[in-house]
Amino acid sequence: MKNKTFFPVEDWLITENEYIAEDMERNASLFFLGNGYLGIRGGLEETGRDYGGAHKGTFINGFYESAPQIYAESAYGFPDKKQMMLNLPDLTEIKILINDELFSPEQGSIIEYKRQLLLKEGIVKRKVIWRSPDGQKVLFKSRRCVSFEKQHMALIHVSVTLLETAGNIKIISSAYIDPDTRKTDKNDPRIGTGFKHKPLECLRRETEGTKAFVIQKTVNSGLYLGYGIAHSAGKSFSSQSLSLQDRFEFVFDTDAQSGCEYSFTKYICCHSSIEGDVARIRSRVMDDIEKSVAFGAENFLEEQKRHVAEFWRSADIFIEGDNSLQQGIRFNLFSLYQSAGRDGLRNIAAKGLSGEGYEGHYFWDTEIYVLPFFIYTMPEIASNLLEYRYNILDCARERASVMNEAGALYPWRTINGEEASAYFPAGTAQYHINADIAYGIQKYVNATEDFEFLKQYGAEIIFETAKLWLSLGFFDEKDGLFKINDVTGPDEYTAIVNNNLFTNLMVKNHLEYALQIADELQQKSPADFEGIKKKVNLTTETLRLWRQAAEHIFIPYDSNLSVHSQDDSFMQKEKWDFDGTDKSLYPLLLHFHPLVIYRHQVLKQPDVVLSNFLLGKRFSLVQKLRNYLYYNPLTTGDSSLSPCIQGIMAAELGREEDAYEYFNKTARMDLDDINSNVSDGVHIAAMGGTWLSLVYGFAGLRDYDGKLSFTPKLPKKWSRLAFQLKRGKCALSVDISSVEVRYTLTEGDALCICHEGEEVCIQQGNPLTFSLKPVLKAVIFDLDGVVTDTAEYHYLAWQRLSDELGLDFSREINEKLRGVGRLESFEIILDHAGKTFTAEEKQRLANLKNEYYKEFIGRITPEDILPGIADFIKELQSAGIKIALASASRNALEVIERLNLKDSFDVIVNPASLEKGKPDPEIFITAAESLNENIRNCAGIEDAASGITALNTAGFYSVGIGPAASDADWSLESTTSLTLDRLIEKFSSR
Amino acid sequence: MKNKTFFPVEDWLITENEYIAEDMERNASLFFLGNGYLGIRGGLEETGRDYGGAHKGTFINGFYESAPQIYAESAYGFPDKKQMMLNLPDLTEIKILINDELFSPEQGSIIEYKRQLLLKEGIVKRKVIWRSPDGQKVLFKSRRCVSFEKQHMALIHVSVTLLETAGNIKIISSAYIDPDTRKTDKNDPRIGTGFKHKPLECLRRETEGTKAFVIQKTVNSGLYLGYGIAHSAGKSFSSQSLSLQDRFEFVFDTDAQSGCEYSFTKYICCHSSIEGDVARIRSRVMDDIEKSVAFGAENFLEEQKRHVAEFWRSADIFIEGDNSLQQGIRFNLFSLYQSAGRDGLRNIAAKGLSGEGYEGHYFWDTEIYVLPFFIYTMPEIASNLLEYRYNILDCARERASVMNEAGALYPWRTINGEEASAYFPAGTAQYHINADIAYGIQKYVNATEDFEFLKQYGAEIIFETAKLWLSLGFFDEKDGLFKINDVTGPDEYTAIVNNNLFTNLMVKNHLEYALQIADELQQKSPADFEGIKKKVNLTTETLRLWRQAAEHIFIPYDSNLSVHSQDDSFMQKEKWDFDGTDKSLYPLLLHFHPLVIYRHQVLKQPDVVLSNFLLGKRFSLVQKLRNYLYYNPLTTGDSSLSPCIQGIMAAELGREEDAYEYFNKTARMDLDDINSNVSDGVHIAAMGGTWLSLVYGFAGLRDYDGKLSFTPKLPKKWSRLAFQLKRGKCALSVDISSVEVRYTLTEGDALCICHEGEEVCIQQGNPLTFSLKPVLKAVIFDLDGVVTDTAEYHYLAWQRLSDELGLDFSREINEKLRGVGRLESFEIILDHAGKTFTAEEKQRLANLKNEYYKEFIGRITPEDILPGIADFIKELQSAGIKIALASASRNALEVIERLNLKDSFDVIVNPASLEKGKPDPEIFITAAESLNENIRNCAGIEDAASGITALNTAGFYSVGIGPAASDADWSLESTTSLTLDRLIEKFSSR
Repeated sequence: MKNKTFFPVEDWLITENEYIAEDMERNASLFFLGNGYLGIRGGLEETGRDYGGAHKGTFINGFYESAPQIYAESAYGFPDKKQMMLNLPDLTEIKILINDELFSPEQGSIIEYKRQLLLKEGIVKRKVIWRSPDGQKVLFKSRRCVSFEKQHMALIHVSVTLLETAGNIKIISSAYIDPDTRKTDKNDPRIGTGFKHKPLECLRRETEGTKAFVIQKTVNSGLYLGYGIAHSAGKSFSSQSLSLQDRFEFVFDTDAQSGCEYSFTKYICCHSSIEGDVARIRSRVMDDIEKSVAFGAENFLEEQKRHVAEFWRSADIFIEGDNSLQQGIRFNLFSLYQSAGRDGLRNIAAKGLSGEGYEGHYFWDTEIYVLPFFIYTMPEIASNLLEYRYNILDCARERASVMNEAGALYPWRTINGEEASAYFPAGTAQYHINADIAYGIQKYVNATEDFEFLKQYGAEIIFETAKLWLSLGFFDEKDGLFKINDVTGPDEYTAIVNNNLFTNLMVKNHLEYALQIADELQQKSPADFEGIKKKVNLTTETLRLWRQAAEHIFIPYDSNLSVHSQDDSFMQKEKWDFDGTDKSLYPLLLHFHPLVIYRHQVLKQPDVVLSNFLLGKRFSLVQKLRNYLYYNPLTTGDSSLSPCIQGIMAAELGREEDAYEYFNKTARMDLDDINSNVSDGVHIAAMGGTWLSLVYGFAGLRDYDGKLSFTPKLPKKWSRLAFQLKRGKCALSVDISSVEVRYTLTEGDALCICHEGEEVCIQQGNPLTFSLKPVLKAVIFDLDGVVTDTAEYHYLAWQRLSDELGLDFSREINEKLRGVGRLESFEIILDHAGKTFTAEEKQRLANLKNEYYKEFIGRITPEDILPGIADFIKELQSAGIKIALASASRNALEVIERLNLKDSFDVIVNPASLEKGKPDPEIFITAAESLNENIRNCAGIEDAASGITALNTAGFYSVGIGPAASDADWSLESTTSLTLDRLIEKFSSR
Repeated sequence: MKNKTFFPVEDWLITENEYIAEDMERNASLFFLGNGYLGIRGGLEETGRDYGGAHKGTFINGFYESAPQIYAESAYGFPDKKQMMLNLPDLTEIKILINDELFSPEQGSIIEYKRQLLLKEGIVKRKVIWRSPDGQKVLFKSRRCVSFEKQHMALIHVSVTLLETAGNIKIISSAYIDPDTRKTDKNDPRIGTGFKHKPLECLRRETEGTKAFVIQKTVNSGLYLGYGIAHSAGKSFSSQSLSLQDRFEFVFDTDAQSGCEYSFTKYICCHSSIEGDVARIRSRVMDDIEKSVAFGAENFLEEQKRHVAEFWRSADIFIEGDNSLQQGIRFNLFSLYQSAGRDGLRNIAAKGLSGEGYEGHYFWDTEIYVLPFFIYTMPEIASNLLEYRYNILDCARERASVMNEAGALYPWRTINGEEASAYFPAGTAQYHINADIAYGIQKYVNATEDFEFLKQYGAEIIFETAKLWLSLGFFDEKDGLFKINDVTGPDEYTAIVNNNLFTNLMVKNHLEYALQIADELQQKSPADFEGIKKKVNLTTETLRLWRQAAEHIFIPYDSNLSVHSQDDSFMQKEKWDFDGTDKSLYPLLLHFHPLVIYRHQVLKQPDVVLSNFLLGKRFSLVQKLRNYLYYNPLTTGDSSLSPCIQGIMAAELGREEDAYEYFNKTARMDLDDINSNVSDGVHIAAMGGTWLSLVYGFAGLRDYDGKLSFTPKLPKKWSRLAFQLKRGKCALSVDISSVEVRYTLTEGDALCICHEGEEVCIQQGNPLTFSLKPVLKAVIFDLDGVVTDTAEYHYLAWQRLSDELGLDFSREINEKLRGVGRLESFEIILDHAGKTFTAEEKQRLANLKNEYYKEFIGRITPEDILPGIADFIKELQSAGIKIALASASRNALEVIERLNLKDSFDVIVNPASLEKGKPDPEIFITAAESLNENIRNCAGIEDAASGITALNTAGFYSVGIGPAASDADWSLESTTSLTLDRLIEKFSSR
């Protein structure tokens, strides 16, 4: 993984300080400008298709051309058309000639060069001081803006100053007729496959003064495109227009004085038939462009700045302590804002408006990775993105019917609503898209309380997509469970499996939500509900079956490993040989046949971990931890969608270093070009994931059913993280430092949230502050070797058994039994003694040992409490610190009673209730949960290595007694030196 | 399914009696001629590309062009080239002009028309009497021959007679330069996708008199093609040659008298660079063609006739009693002979040399469906087909490496040895191809004892392909079993599954065979073995792991159903809704998305049933029967590979009507165009399947480990089936009638075979004859209701229990318990009484009932034997007929003892040893097997419907006592009328 930073770390700025030809392609993606409708890649104005420079790009979000999808071997139901966001004819080209010499970074010499994306102003500006081959020293400046206020307009303002001697300046501004040839790569499925035909047919082209206007039509998709350019130049310029076969050229010519700035503005306007009347397309372009010319460049840019300031007021996230991440998050949020459609007719593509990667298609990325940012900062954009799904619902109905299913099936990837995935095992098979969209709607409605949206669009989508599940899955006669076979989950390194956990859980959630809103609509708006029911043909029987399916859906679980299985057969697969896989062989998809990948336990996207995040309330903490520990090592870095999810779960599970590392990968993925593919466009999902990482990760937001809850925890390096969330009519500011969090209501009267599990209500004008410093609130004790030395009795019991059986046994072997269960201990002894018994005999003899042990512990008295422990317990009690016992021994209760300590413990965990023993942290987590204390505020005391591992794994403060427990946060030789003062001192300074 | 017969049923002839334009395409496939090297479709000479008629075709087996394989979405390891058997430039065209009017079936009028494939002579001849629009009455005759003796030569002999008035005859014979455009269908994966480029580049073209010669080269595959034509015409013809851009034309002109026959011969010759020196290609063509011209047409045709007679001497199968099947089998065998490569450089394509369907590729069809015919009739051709596999072994090594596996992986479909499958779920994923090829080699070597082949080619293939399994599969740590995940078995309606039963069993067989030949080579030819070991890097460790894998390979089995599961998850799938699927929706692959098909229990090819045939000795009879009964209803008729296999297993399992129906589908598949796709070419695998159906099906050949065993059984309709098999140095004639079979050794001194399980040795000159008439050799008794009426005691016991529990019970309900197990009976009673108990209580109460029952049966005495039974048993004993008891009752032994009958039974089946109760036939099959008697010779006596079902399912002669058993072959009201005489009478006349 590369770690170089291409751009200096500056607040609110992305700066390119040098012209490096081979970086131009990548930087064209990073310096893209867009407004959700129109997008322009950061190609330099003075470079063009015939004379070098990066691949340029001008896009209208959702404006696509289609072509026949040709399969090497086709089959029924394979999508027969492909769609590609069309790279429009280039309108940005501005060639400058100084004394008829072309200003170009590729000739002459560059004396000074700076290009900057001004995140606060929403423009890209550039300054170049250049010496022509002829010796002219020229100052070139440009500002480029794609207007947020004027969706169809962009502007390029250029100025030229001859710094040393007078000379002739010619500015040649072009508008092309044919689109640029697209970049394609037939071996990398993540890049498009291109067109074989000329995608645009020119219907009309005209010039009027220095304005040009063109109407074109896409050959296959039948969409109309109208575009125009206009210019405003200083009076000294003479102008001339040329109508060439492939383009218009406008030549502005002046004899310039030295030291004098000659400036020039190019206005660009695009309209399409998607959003408006074709008959009016010419006047739409002309009106817009004329108004902008009249408005003037400076007003145009000023308006943009005001707009962007407004954006940052709701969307900014402030990080103190890491400027590079601060820069990363702001770049990412701004890119999201630049890329999201705002009219319900388009969505947000996988690469936004920064490039043609993934062919400009919309995926589940929108609902799962990007939507939360918009829901909580600009809910109107979130609403627009979901409205788009409503607008393609009929296509989804049609697709379900082709796929032989009821209801609607959303396309895995699409622009116009039709399925465009050409590889069904990782496309159409991802039926979970239906549940993902439902999840997005649920989150939106819960956070915004936008019941109108639900009535008008949401409910119909939810119901129609829910209907698919009943026909896709089936109730298995054998066990009555609802099962869904032959699907692919989010993890594309495992395909066409039965009962993908993620899918099944998301379906359960989807069905439950469908039932919930059916109830709600019935109660709140029965007439509307009747209408919707009729439209989607929703019967009582369907509702009954939804309930039955939701209740009885099959959840694959591996009870040997105590881990959720990603699907029915995942645990039956061979593990990938990670050690034997050279780094150069990643991403695996470019170096191994799909069958080889599918055959192994190896992940592209962490399916189970993702479900543990999205549907966290359906999992216990210990279960999430086990799943994380199992699947994380199997997860390659091959998908940009993974690290944010891994990071969020790492944060929840108290694994702060992991969380920080994953966050870095996410936040700087594009600026540092971590996957070396930014030239195809930025990673929109990962950008949304950055926001998720901060808000769900470090601030610990959870919003199941719309209630906001927080468990903030900053990375060590940071001193502050602050952001704002909208919730219904309220806006909440969350300001987290390393020691406290402050919740302030900036809009609305009152909002009740949860802070660390406790409900608190924030009133307008009355911020609440909570300390985040860990405070010792509970101590959890192991028994043997900590409270008393039953270890000695265990030794004696084993010794007696060994003597009777004639087995070789010693204190040395006994040391190996610390923290180990009864039967396992006996195995170790037998192994050492070289003896074997049948399973029944082993069980019987181990039980016999227990009888001997019980005899020994029958002799225990309070005298046997280890030195210092009795006093220490008293100290804890008088300090009001809770005490729990977490011993794996089934005789613990008897021992504690004989020690006369039973009443000292607030909680004694029953080991019989546990699924797994130490080093699994279940016993300690159960103790903390029973004490109702946050793990962060608990210390655990252990003498065994496995116990310390359990404590550390779960994030407890661990105290180790004796040599076997040296991996603890605080290690002591014996219990003698254990005092509350020393513990608090150590605990606080960790 | 259509059932029309297109052609009159005639011995040794396929006759087209009428010219029907729309049948020409189909009939062009059926009238194809080939010799394994050269193939020509049956297009009419006088039709051509520009003036109507069927799509023509001239092929050299294995002569292909390649083109880039373009994927809608590609991935690593997808084959990047496609290969297609090239349809060569047409050389057959002969236009005839009568007074300058074109002789054509499409104009004028046809007075008489007949085209015939003469199976005995190996030629197609045609006779047409035609009246020209101008009124000339013309007799046209042609004979066409692709020579078996002269592999590169074909000949067309034409004669024209003006029947009424003199006139001018012009014969224009052409040779084209460019190939015809291929038929393609992008929606049907079974048809090819065609070329986008012009595949042949012409290097040289020349004429010399009435001869023409051309050298071409394929653009991508770089193969050279040399072809020529020559003519011989009567002296009255003047001739002229034209060299046109796309063809040569030779015009033969004569003014003909009426009533005089004018004849003309066209010689066609093709050579390629595959089989010989490119530099000599011109002389190879010229030499061949000149020799043939000198040899003359009549000699040429006479030689063909002699050759074909020789073929039939070894290959013919004689059927008496069904002429249509006799015609079908002979057509099929001749087509196989015409299509199989004979030089180790080419194989046998899925459509043979009859058309371009499946792009002329070679599949597993060769080894599994076609090879046995050649092994047992023309072993030298079998050897050639396997040599081809050796010649592409390096490609298979290369492919294994691309797929990340060890050893070699044969392509699923190929011409040149490279994988050409463009849809990996039903292509590359069919790893079983390796084991199929090994199976073919094993069968070849066992039957021929060709140890030289094994040393030179076979062992290297077997070892190299066996190595793949160790890297593809893995030993599961959980259970030590060897598992193979993510493969596709032969059934293409189920894809990418874990532990496909067929694959795993074939792998086991492959590994065991590899170990066996390693031993054999070590013993017989250690030096050679060392060489092979070195070449394939075979270590002792590999051999050890092969043994371990073979022993521990996982065999999926559903113990609830007592059926082998097709793979790990097959039984977890929903069953296909066959009732809800309209007939028009078959084949399913053209009407449902693969995911929909894969998600259900529905089969294209019957995987498990196929494994039960190929590896039958690894399954018990009852297991095969259960598997057949489970999978047969799930098998669509969508694959031409299925019916022969289903039929063979139906025959083995005594289901004669099924066997006969499946055989019909197989034998007449092409002549009746059952799947409506013969126009793409004939179904070579089904043709091989016809031979399998007769020899393995009705003659019951099994040849595990090379030993021939037979259990013949003719369909009722047939009176005779006769054929000949080669085995080592021997040839065995098998002549089966409905009453007997006669084995005659026609070559060799002696051959030991098995007849109906008994070893017999046939000596030269000493044929052996065995009767096939069923003879009553054993009677198997049910107990309750047959031998004694314990049914009454069961009734009393249930009544007592019901009274105690206060349950409503009656004799009427008791009737429902006949033949039903104890716990199930109790469920029926409870169900009726509307009561529920826990599982334990039910068990306890059912046991209690058994105690009561035992009390009752304690009172049984020999007096309780049902009327007539004691005498009947005595009759059986004195007639030497064996007797068995097959009762499901666990108290049967006690009852029999009390009846004093224990010693009368030769076998008493222990019901505790059985997996399933009646109606599963296990108990009866077990009885017959214990008695060592063929089911055909056993009668079973039962009073319960479930028992009669069990008997009938397994093919026993069933005798039913009482009303519940009326589905029996012979039904009686009571045991009173049961006598041996009557039974033998009924048994013999069934």
